[in-house]
Amino acid sequence: MKDKGFLVVISGPAGTGKGTVVKELAKENNVEVSISATTRAPRGNEKDGVEYHFLSRGQFESIIENDGFLEYAEYCGNYYGSPKKQAEEWISAGKDVILEIEVQGFEKIKKKNPECISIFIMPPSFKELERRLRKRATDSEESILKRLERAKEEVKIASDYDYIIVNGSVEKCAADIKSVLYAEKLKSKRFDVDSMF
Amino acid sequence: MKDKGFLVVISGPAGTGKGTVVKELAKENNVEVSISATTRAPRGNEKDGVEYHFLSRGQFESIIENDGFLEYAEYCGNYYGSPKKQAEEWISAGKDVILEIEVQGFEKIKKKNPECISIFIMPPSFKELERRLRKRATDSEESILKRLERAKEEVKIASDYDYIIVNGSVEKCAADIKSVLYAEKLKSKRFDVDSMF
Repeated sequence: MKDKGFLVVISGPAGTGKGTVVKELAKENNVEVSISATTRAPRGNEKDGVEYHFLSRGQFESIIENDGFLEYAEYCGNYYGSPKKQAEEWISAGKDVILEIEVQGFEKIKKKNPECISIFIMPPSFKELERRLRKRATDSEESILKRLERAKEEVKIASDYDYIIVNGSVEKCAADIKSVLYAEKLKSKRFDVDSMF
Repeated sequence: MKDKGFLVVISGPAGTGKGTVVKELAKENNVEVSISATTRAPRGNEKDGVEYHFLSRGQFESIIENDGFLEYAEYCGNYYGSPKKQAEEWISAGKDVILEIEVQGFEKIKKKNPECISIFIMPPSFKELERRLRKRATDSEESILKRLERAKEEVKIASDYDYIIVNGSVEKCAADIKSVLYAEKLKSKRFDVDSMF
């Protein structure tokens, strides 16, 4: 435990800006961001090992068999998962590893890794969330309304997370997460009392 | 829970400098320091309501009967206790209230107030603690050795506290405690999810 990094789960409704917050956190020396694996085909300019690790179904299933995912799920006929090995190596090296995942993934992670630190990023309000979703202008009206409905469901389980941090501004939200990780390192269970003697 | 302050228990061996750290924290607007009550006589320039609330045995025992202490104990024929009313008023007003108490007092507080935040202030090393105790130059050699022995006993139960913070410098230690209190306010249980709807 003592000098290891944390497994940090970050979730939040689409449009909350968690991706931007995670990018801000990734600037820290001791923070790494886990890259998910998927069997879906790359879109547009997506590169293997950048947005995702793109795997064949066979490759993905062989990793499942070897218990190589922190969590995985199948959506619309494609697998998505968080590779375990790289995350564990970073954590052993004292780095905090961020997993940006869906709330369903968090429930699975929490069961297997109860010591993870979980943070739910909350929009300032649903009104503001709607404004942000419309600003993207990539989604149809139907899709925006669907995302808003889904956000309302996700927010209801926010209290299952250790922390809830409102994303009013990216800088403030990232700074709050850094404070949380800093304070967590001061927890008594991470202090080796025997080292005093 | 939501907008209340915290009951913050701070303990640590004599000579660790926790008094100075608490004075530094007291400069914050939202922090109050609980003043203990005692039946011992004032010493030197001690003023009622500053170092202690000086009470008669009768007054003290009547407060005990009315469950008016967060914790109390009798040492060397004198009572010492942490008055409950003022602390609860501050906490309701959203202030964090610091109780600087002995490890024995902490165990009692923790039982009745499991939601308290407990911080053990650790000297950088026993060697440094000895140096600090000798620097005071108010204690006899016998008393210094006794305090060192006691410190070693106290440090062994440091892991019962939520946090262990090393006091290398007063400013750093006080800043670490402020980080802890800040992060604790981001805990999901303090967020009123219903307020989003």
